[in-house]
Amino acid sequence: MEYYGSHISRLIEALTGLPGVGAKSAQRLAFHIINMPKEQVQALAEAMTSARENVHYCRECCTLTDDDLCPICRSQKRNHRQIMVVENSRDLAAYEKTGRYEGVYHVLQGAISPMLGIGPSDIRLKELMQRLQGDVEEVIIATNSSLEGETTAMYIARLVKPTGIKVTRIASGVPVGGDIENIDEVTLERALSGRVEL
Amino acid sequence: MEYYGSHISRLIEALTGLPGVGAKSAQRLAFHIINMPKEQVQALAEAMTSARENVHYCRECCTLTDDDLCPICRSQKRNHRQIMVVENSRDLAAYEKTGRYEGVYHVLQGAISPMLGIGPSDIRLKELMQRLQGDVEEVIIATNSSLEGETTAMYIARLVKPTGIKVTRIASGVPVGGDIENIDEVTLERALSGRVEL
Repeated sequence: MEYYGSHISRLIEALTGLPGVGAKSAQRLAFHIINMPKEQVQALAEAMTSARENVHYCRECCTLTDDDLCPICRSQKRNHRQIMVVENSRDLAAYEKTGRYEGVYHVLQGAISPMLGIGPSDIRLKELMQRLQGDVEEVIIATNSSLEGETTAMYIARLVKPTGIKVTRIASGVPVGGDIENIDEVTLERALSGRVEL
Repeated sequence: MEYYGSHISRLIEALTGLPGVGAKSAQRLAFHIINMPKEQVQALAEAMTSARENVHYCRECCTLTDDDLCPICRSQKRNHRQIMVVENSRDLAAYEKTGRYEGVYHVLQGAISPMLGIGPSDIRLKELMQRLQGDVEEVIIATNSSLEGETTAMYIARLVKPTGIKVTRIASGVPVGGDIENIDEVTLERALSGRVEL
């Protein structure tokens, strides 16, 4: 990339490898950044370094947050006896957007994956079990519907059941607006076996 | 996005709107950055600000570069009497990758687009005409094969012809490896009218 000069090449290199950014989009991003107003570039660079430096895991639910306790764990309005277990902070955000969940969360920061060598001790399971020693009524397992998510769900269910706390799993089925003919058989099978009376 | 805390929200906001980065990928990028090693985040932030601050247009060909003159315009090995006109520095890079072009470039930094309100004076045409007062043999117009690119090509051809300098346009046709049945009629028509004897 000598024809670009060292500053541009270095920026392209630094951008390549970010999730979803290949060689071509790194070039596109680099030239966009070079053409942005100076203050905006500085703000972006500053947002990156300050987020990296100031963000850590919530002491209670392990989500990424600015403070010692995240806004949800701090809130008096939430039902702290209901814990929804999710894989990461983006999943938490997705459920929060529905505006229908009143309980709190536990963010595993991953899922059990024998294929990737991620075992139960590599995710925030110990922290979950510690929380269950408090006053908890229900654990809702909302890990993904993938192989890893299901493995993790089963593992957690097995751990929690002996404590006598209710364990539930979010429903699996046809997505709203989904076209039946385009949905895979496994999902359809689940939708059928999980049918509810009207 | 209050559930993320202000640092993460600010980073997501700053990332949203970069080319190809919507709300979802901004979240994914933000969490990736937060989980990157601290030095790597600093290097990325530094690459952005320093590229933005140190890069400017080549005095000769108007490409984005570190120095007063870009490496290609500086080179004694290139044929400075042959100028290939491209829309932007990424197009220049694409031709450089072929390794088959020995001449120099002129980077318009855009294309004429009446729809977007971009006129001839908004791109680096004046600079091109100035260069043509020197010792130039051929101007190869390599703007895109889009409506804007073609308009720009015709406009330039009309300007250059009176100077007596040879003006050529890159060939348009079926891309190598292209499947005829999937190629649009306009391209096929061009491929036919531009056929060469074997």
